[in-house]
Amino acid sequence: MIAPAPLRDGDMLAALDLGSNSFHMVVAQMVLGQLRVVDRLRETVRMAEGLDGFGGLAPDVRDRALDCLSRFGQRVADIPPHRIRAVATNTVRQLRAPEAFLVPAEAALGHAIDVVSGREEARLVYLGVAHAQPPQDGQLRLVIDIGGGSTECIIGSGLDAIERESLQAGCVASTRRFFANGKLSRKRWKDALTEVTAEFQQFASAYRALGWDEAIGSSGTNKAIGEICAAMKLTKGAVTAEALPLVRERLLQAERIDDIDLPGLSADRRPIIAGGVLVLEAVFAALGLQRMQVSKAALREGVLYDMLGRGGADDPRDVSVAALMQRYGIDAAQAKRVEATAVQLFDQVARAWNLDAGDRRMLVRAARLHEIGLAIAHSGYHVHGAYILEHSDIAGFSQQGQRFLAALVRTHRRGIPKSAFEMIPDRLLANTRHCAALLRLAVLLHRSHDNERMPALQLRADGERLTLAFDKRWLQARPLLRADLEGEPEDMLGLGVQLRLAAE
Amino acid sequence: MIAPAPLRDGDMLAALDLGSNSFHMVVAQMVLGQLRVVDRLRETVRMAEGLDGFGGLAPDVRDRALDCLSRFGQRVADIPPHRIRAVATNTVRQLRAPEAFLVPAEAALGHAIDVVSGREEARLVYLGVAHAQPPQDGQLRLVIDIGGGSTECIIGSGLDAIERESLQAGCVASTRRFFANGKLSRKRWKDALTEVTAEFQQFASAYRALGWDEAIGSSGTNKAIGEICAAMKLTKGAVTAEALPLVRERLLQAERIDDIDLPGLSADRRPIIAGGVLVLEAVFAALGLQRMQVSKAALREGVLYDMLGRGGADDPRDVSVAALMQRYGIDAAQAKRVEATAVQLFDQVARAWNLDAGDRRMLVRAARLHEIGLAIAHSGYHVHGAYILEHSDIAGFSQQGQRFLAALVRTHRRGIPKSAFEMIPDRLLANTRHCAALLRLAVLLHRSHDNERMPALQLRADGERLTLAFDKRWLQARPLLRADLEGEPEDMLGLGVQLRLAAE
Repeated sequence: MIAPAPLRDGDMLAALDLGSNSFHMVVAQMVLGQLRVVDRLRETVRMAEGLDGFGGLAPDVRDRALDCLSRFGQRVADIPPHRIRAVATNTVRQLRAPEAFLVPAEAALGHAIDVVSGREEARLVYLGVAHAQPPQDGQLRLVIDIGGGSTECIIGSGLDAIERESLQAGCVASTRRFFANGKLSRKRWKDALTEVTAEFQQFASAYRALGWDEAIGSSGTNKAIGEICAAMKLTKGAVTAEALPLVRERLLQAERIDDIDLPGLSADRRPIIAGGVLVLEAVFAALGLQRMQVSKAALREGVLYDMLGRGGADDPRDVSVAALMQRYGIDAAQAKRVEATAVQLFDQVARAWNLDAGDRRMLVRAARLHEIGLAIAHSGYHVHGAYILEHSDIAGFSQQGQRFLAALVRTHRRGIPKSAFEMIPDRLLANTRHCAALLRLAVLLHRSHDNERMPALQLRADGERLTLAFDKRWLQARPLLRADLEGEPEDMLGLGVQLRLAAE
Repeated sequence: MIAPAPLRDGDMLAALDLGSNSFHMVVAQMVLGQLRVVDRLRETVRMAEGLDGFGGLAPDVRDRALDCLSRFGQRVADIPPHRIRAVATNTVRQLRAPEAFLVPAEAALGHAIDVVSGREEARLVYLGVAHAQPPQDGQLRLVIDIGGGSTECIIGSGLDAIERESLQAGCVASTRRFFANGKLSRKRWKDALTEVTAEFQQFASAYRALGWDEAIGSSGTNKAIGEICAAMKLTKGAVTAEALPLVRERLLQAERIDDIDLPGLSADRRPIIAGGVLVLEAVFAALGLQRMQVSKAALREGVLYDMLGRGGADDPRDVSVAALMQRYGIDAAQAKRVEATAVQLFDQVARAWNLDAGDRRMLVRAARLHEIGLAIAHSGYHVHGAYILEHSDIAGFSQQGQRFLAALVRTHRRGIPKSAFEMIPDRLLANTRHCAALLRLAVLLHRSHDNERMPALQLRADGERLTLAFDKRWLQARPLLRADLEGEPEDMLGLGVQLRLAAE
């Protein structure tokens, strides 16, 4: 129930990034009020290579990933769970049955893994680069991150991403797609470049209209290309519109991927550099880029800095919730009433139901957003609300977090379909059901949408039994509420909770 | 292609309302620039009685409805189709397979029938009452319309509805639900009143917070209750908080519906007056109403006046589209570019494809809204957009109209699933597919989102064959666009259209 204590000197944090090419971990320590990186691990897992065309994952690649995660898990075993965050990106997003990978992966790591959407990944990348190299006041910065499976393009100012895009075009995926048999040719390159450039074209003119003062490339691919440019003495480490075609021409002197001979290129990266150079050339073409500096910071640093904000006053998730409330015109007074009652109920059963501070914050967010679907229509608004919350790009949230909110909003009124919790991972199921029960009660108690003060409510949980006690006379004066309450125990069975009403 | 000419003196218009209790028709003529009602027809069809619990319609009730529609059809046979509008309300909304009723119904009437949502019905009712009894400047007016299957509550000012709600509680439906075996009792009444009041409670406090200066009841039920109040000498025709319980007590002197003896009540209305009084008592309780005047105007008059606005500069549908563009932050410049090209293409094939001015207006609206789903997420935004357009309460549109827009937005990019046109009635299918093909082309041509001027495009339709001719050199300078265009013929087969590209 207590918010995590603020970090103190000596505290350790860890961020893990399960990327489509490599898995990364960065461990940092609080020193004199600043984060200092004390350890970095990287393993080339090449998750994206294991993807088949139907969302399945090859068993050997899966095992490679699990082995890596147990090694990483060992390294973070001593760090308290609320100071570790692991995020998975494009390859896991592509899986048809992500749980089949995530359940053993979380067991191997000994920690939960959050799947983040492409645009959330973009936000985190920007945050990592911005912390490593603070941009100048008022300047706009373009950040390009070429991952194994996807490429993120962000324009931001200060620590805030303004435009975030994520496209299905990464170095591993593009190499597989366009040079599957390992052969290279000028003709293939040209066709592939047209296709990939067309993808970036979708948002290129919006980006060009906004503009930027400097461009920075993060990710291993950009770093590698920068090093090649330097080794070829084309630049001092930046990538430029003049240098890039020379790198490509040198690359295409090889007729096969295995024969690629580029100065400064590590053997480890040779199998995927063709896709990486291709994607970067498409980015340069679509955005009309002239010059891009390279940064060592990336997603994992963004995850690290994002953790510092979580649970605090500036939790990016709460900022997003406030923005959604505004955009969809949510009745803030009603949201506040429901939130207050939901929290009052939560605090009485949290211990019995093993709910923690994170659950409490998520319940608060669901209470604030439960009427969001009214913007679409009154009829079935809980269904519309769940749709919005499941499908929107909401900054700061993992996919699981959005699904948690969607499930609570979906089940906050009317009948509870079995499918409502389909997308919730097993380990979160009990907490989700329990929070859903609390939100239902809070909404029901405030159904009249008026300002009448709620009397103190007594809620007790014992296993799946939940007892709500209230003053008999108070309820008798409220026949409508009583009628609603009397129907609730039956509905709540759909959440697996046996509600008992005790008039006292 | 030409917008319908403005009405001239002598022109006739007809509006039909296929209600859950009665079917109404009103025929009006333009006289000295004003609408004058020249004919009214009403038949007690009691559609709601034919509804079973599974969305089926009893065959005898269906036949009663079709017979009535052929009689109405005869009356309007001489009026040009674009000056007739028929709307169906709650009972048709409840049907599991509305087309099974609508297809023979449209055949019997000889005219299309629009199904309108509850809140659109509320808007039209308000419009009808406002035209019949113009409200005073700056005053707020509450309008209550108790239909056979649903009740609409609206607060408006001038000709505009501000709040619109529609609840599943009408006079026929409530009589069936609470007094199914024809028996009346004080106990049943009390329980039923609690339930129905609870339904209205959902929005009551928002309505009370906004407030109103006067309340007006429309619909046959309110008229009948007003007449009973007058016949009992309780009021001069209004319904008041004092009179209503006296009417109810007099009603409950009967133990069976057949024995109800209320002064001023017609035999025709006796079987459904219990549900009507019950709903009105619930409205008075939930809203704390003291006094309600009665108006003769209703939905059908609203439909009539709404028709005057359609196709003109103030078409309520265009006002709604503009509001949606604003709410969802649509890129207006891109919408405008796509609209201009879509219209340019439309005008070249409209004759060959038998598309009319109404289709053109709907294509324009789809072009303006095609990016609406971006507010939810970039990925799959065409799917999100279709969801919003299908499920939102959009003032001015029938359900079929919204589904037309949703189908065009759903299919404007990427693959075309078979299910995309499932909800489109057969008679609209060809035009929907053809407009969808035009929107796809327009969006594709503007995919780069830039301001480059489109060259003149030549489009020819011949049956399902569509030929797009363009300047070869112009296209050759645009490899991205060319790549997109070359993939389009295959995708467009999903619309049943064979696209051929002719470079000239």
